Amino acid sequence: MKDHLFRQIGQTITNRIERGELKPGDKLPSVRSLALELGVHRLTVFKAYQQLKHRGSVTVVDKSGYYVKEDASPLVGLDYPVVSSYVHKSHLSEIHRIHADYQFSQAVIDPDLLPNQYTSSSAKHVLDLYPKVFSTYAAVQGDSELRDYLSHYFYQNQKQLASPEEILIASGSQQAIDLIARVLVRRGDTVLIERPTYSAAIDVFHNIGARLLTADLTAEGYNLVQIEKLMKEYRPRLFYSNPTFQNPTGYTVPLEQRKQLVDLAEKYQVFLLEDDAFRDIYFADKPPLPLSSYDVHGHCIYVRSFSKYIAPGLRIAAVVCREPLMQQLLAAKSLMDNGTPLLNQKLFLHYFRSDRLQQHIEKLRTALEIRKEVMETSLADQQLTWESPSGGLNLWVRVPDAINMDRLLAECLTHSLSFVPGTICDPLKKQEHWVRLSYSFMNEQKIKEGITRFKDILKKLNKEII
Amino acid sequence: MKDHLFRQIGQTITNRIERGELKPGDKLPSVRSLALELGVHRLTVFKAYQQLKHRGSVTVVDKSGYYVKEDASPLVGLDYPVVSSYVHKSHLSEIHRIHADYQFSQAVIDPDLLPNQYTSSSAKHVLDLYPKVFSTYAAVQGDSELRDYLSHYFYQNQKQLASPEEILIASGSQQAIDLIARVLVRRGDTVLIERPTYSAAIDVFHNIGARLLTADLTAEGYNLVQIEKLMKEYRPRLFYSNPTFQNPTGYTVPLEQRKQLVDLAEKYQVFLLEDDAFRDIYFADKPPLPLSSYDVHGHCIYVRSFSKYIAPGLRIAAVVCREPLMQQLLAAKSLMDNGTPLLNQKLFLHYFRSDRLQQHIEKLRTALEIRKEVMETSLADQQLTWESPSGGLNLWVRVPDAINMDRLLAECLTHSLSFVPGTICDPLKKQEHWVRLSYSFMNEQKIKEGITRFKDILKKLNKEII
Repeated sequence: MKDHLFRQIGQTITNRIERGELKPGDKLPSVRSLALELGVHRLTVFKAYQQLKHRGSVTVVDKSGYYVKEDASPLVGLDYPVVSSYVHKSHLSEIHRIHADYQFSQAVIDPDLLPNQYTSSSAKHVLDLYPKVFSTYAAVQGDSELRDYLSHYFYQNQKQLASPEEILIASGSQQAIDLIARVLVRRGDTVLIERPTYSAAIDVFHNIGARLLTADLTAEGYNLVQIEKLMKEYRPRLFYSNPTFQNPTGYTVPLEQRKQLVDLAEKYQVFLLEDDAFRDIYFADKPPLPLSSYDVHGHCIYVRSFSKYIAPGLRIAAVVCREPLMQQLLAAKSLMDNGTPLLNQKLFLHYFRSDRLQQHIEKLRTALEIRKEVMETSLADQQLTWESPSGGLNLWVRVPDAINMDRLLAECLTHSLSFVPGTICDPLKKQEHWVRLSYSFMNEQKIKEGITRFKDILKKLNKEII
Repeated sequence: MKDHLFRQIGQTITNRIERGELKPGDKLPSVRSLALELGVHRLTVFKAYQQLKHRGSVTVVDKSGYYVKEDASPLVGLDYPVVSSYVHKSHLSEIHRIHADYQFSQAVIDPDLLPNQYTSSSAKHVLDLYPKVFSTYAAVQGDSELRDYLSHYFYQNQKQLASPEEILIASGSQQAIDLIARVLVRRGDTVLIERPTYSAAIDVFHNIGARLLTADLTAEGYNLVQIEKLMKEYRPRLFYSNPTFQNPTGYTVPLEQRKQLVDLAEKYQVFLLEDDAFRDIYFADKPPLPLSSYDVHGHCIYVRSFSKYIAPGLRIAAVVCREPLMQQLLAAKSLMDNGTPLLNQKLFLHYFRSDRLQQHIEKLRTALEIRKEVMETSLADQQLTWESPSGGLNLWVRVPDAINMDRLLAECLTHSLSFVPGTICDPLKKQEHWVRLSYSFMNEQKIKEGITRFKDILKKLNKEII
C-alpha cells in the first residue's frame, strides 16, 4: 500500500506540472506540508519527490527545497508523450503472460475437458435459428430470452428469486465486478474484501483508489465478530465475497454463517457482492445456497459466471440485483460497451438449456476430482499443508516458512512451471508462505510431472537455507 | 455543468453521512465555508443542501444551519439500501429504449442491409476451422491473427503504420473510448471535445468528472486558432475527435487541417483520440487519411469500429497506439473484461478478409446514399437547413428558433417517431435548435412517411407559436 501511495503522490505532482499549475522554476510544496495536506508519512512524500528527481522532472536546491526543472518539464523534449496512467498493472494477467510447460497458475479448465464438438454443432443450429443475430445489437441489459431462462434456473436450482428485470448479462465475471465497482465505489471509499481473495478483484478496487479492509477467511469460514466490527466502524460500501469453493483457497463458508452475514449487511447497509463462479464444481455434496438466496432487502449483488466450465470463449456472466441499483448498473454498462454481444448470449443459452449440459457437468466434476486427487497424492509431503477442498479448481498450499517466495517463483518459472504466489491474493500483500496451484488446466500426467518438479525445486531451496 | 456540480456536492455529503463521518445531529459545514473549500458558487452548495433537505437527509434550523436528521439518516428505515451511484445516466441509451415506429434516433444500419446469410455460412466455416474456439480465452490484447491482418490493412488502405503489437481489439468502439478514458482521465482532468459530438462520449468523460472544453466543429472543419489557444491555456489530457463523417453532423475535417492538428497535439503534448467509425461509408470521394496516419511521436490514439457496418452483433473495434500507452491499455483491459471473446474476433476476421466484403460495402454505400437522398428530398423545406454530408449515417438539421426542443421531442415520441435532440450532442447542452436524423435504420418508404410526419408536427408547433 505504501508503494502505491508514493506513486500516487508522484502522479499528482506530475499532473499538476502537466496541467501547468506548477510551472518550470516553481517550488514544490515542502515535504512536511504536503505530508500534512495528504495525511501521509513524510517519508512517503520524500520518496515520491526522489522519484520525480530521478525522472528529471524536478531538481533539488540545497536547504531550500524541490523545484520544477526549467529545461526538463515532462511536457517537452520527449520522444513519446508522457503517459501518466491512472491504471496500474494487473498482477494475475502478468503471470499468465509467461509461458510455462506446467501451468499451475491457470484456474481455467483444460479445453480437452470441454465438449467442443457438441458446442460447435449446437452453435450452427443457433445460427440457423436466428438469421439476423449478426446484425442485431443486444439490449444493454441482455437478451430477454436468456434472462427469462436464468430467472427460472435460479429459482429451481438455488431457491433464489430474481425476475428477468433483476438480471443483467455481462461479458464474464471480471466485467461484472468491474461494473459494480464503478457504480458503487469511488476513490477514498472503503471496501471490505476477503483475505486471501481473487487477485484481479483486489486490482479492480485498488485501481479505483478504494481503502481495502480485510475479512479473514479460513477453512471454517468467516469470523463474523470481526466482520461486524469492521462494518460497524468503517461502514464499507460493499463486501466482496466469494463464499463457495473460494478462489484461491477452495474454502466454503458454512450454511449457518450465510444468513447471519446477510443480516449484518442489512444492519449496516453494506452491499454484499457475491462472486459465485464455481458452484457447479462440487466433488461430494452440493454447496450451501448462495448468500443471495437469503436476501430480502436488496443488499446482495450476485455475480454468476457460467461460461467458465462450458464455453469460456463466450464470456457470459449474470448479475442479479434489485432496483434501484439495476438502473445504475444499466447506465454504467451502456457506457462501458453498450451491451454484451447477442450472438454469445444466444449460443450460451442454447447450450445451457440442452440436456447435454448436465451430462457434461457431471463428467467434468469427475475429471476435475481425479485431477485434484492426483495433485494431492503427488504433493504429499510433511512440509506442505493444505485443506482438501470439496470443490473448485485450486489447492491453497502452505510452504515452509524458510522459503523465499520471490525466489521460489523465479526458480519455478526458470523450470517452466508457473503458480500464483499467495502474496498477490492477499490485499495486504503479506501471505508469503502460500501458493495457489490449479489442477484444472493440466492433465494427470502433466500434474504428476509438474508437482514432482515443484517439490524438487522446494527441496533445493530448502537445502540452500540449511 | 452546474447541475452536475450540485448533484456532486449532494453526493459528497450523502457519502459522508453514509460513512458515518457525519452523524445524526451533526451540523453540516456552512454554505459559505463549503463553497470556499470546493471552489464553487454559494448558490450551488445551497441547491445541494436544499436537495438533501427535500430527500429528508438533513434538516434546517433557522439562523443556525443545516443538520443531519436524527431520525431519517439514509442508512436507516428504508426498504432498499441507498444507492448513491457514481454513474449518471446515459442520455442516448435512454432515448433508444423508447420504442418508435419511425426510429430516426438510431445511427445503426438496418439489418436488412447486412449480408446475414453470407455471415452465417461464413461463421459455420469458422467453427470448423477452429474447433476449440469456444473453450479458449483470447489474449487480452486480442487475437494475433486478427491483429496481423489489421496491421497490413491499415498500411494498405490508409497509409497508417501500426505493428500488430500496437493494435488492441476491443468489444466495440464504446468500450474502446471508455478504456482510453479510464487510463488517461481522472476527476478534475481537462478533456477537449468537439461541439457537437457523440453524446455517449460526453457521458463517459462527464461520469469520470472531467472538465470539458469544447472545440467548435463546422462544415469547414475546426477553428485551429481556437484549439491551439485551448491546448496552450488548459493543457487538456486528450482531445476526443471524430473528424470523418462526424457523428452527429456528418462533417469531415479537411485534409490540410489534419496534419496541423497532429502538430498541435505534439506541441502541447495532448493525446488525440480519433474515433473513426464511418470511414467506409462515403458517397463520393474517399475521405482524407486519418489524423493518426500523420502521427510520428505517438500522440494519436486511433479507434476504428469495424463491426458496425458488417456485423454489429459481433462488437469488434481496433485501438491503435504506441508504447508505453499500449501497456497501460492492456492493464486496464484485463481488469475490464480480460479480453474480447475469441469467437467474435475469428468470425469477424474471416468475414472481413473475404472477397465478399468489398462487394457488400459497395452495395451498402449505394443503399445508404439513396436513403440519404430520400430523406433530404422529403425534408426539403425553407425552414429547415442542413449541410448535405458526403458520408456517414446522419443529417444534422437546424429547426426554426421558435421551436421548443423538449416539446418537439415529446410530440414526436407521442407520434411514435424518435430523433436525437441536439442538446444531448452538445457538451454545453445549449444547441437547442438542432436535431440528428439518422437515415440508416429505416427503409425509403418509412423515411418518406416518417419525415412527412415530422414536418407535420413541426408545422403544428409553429402554428401554436404564431
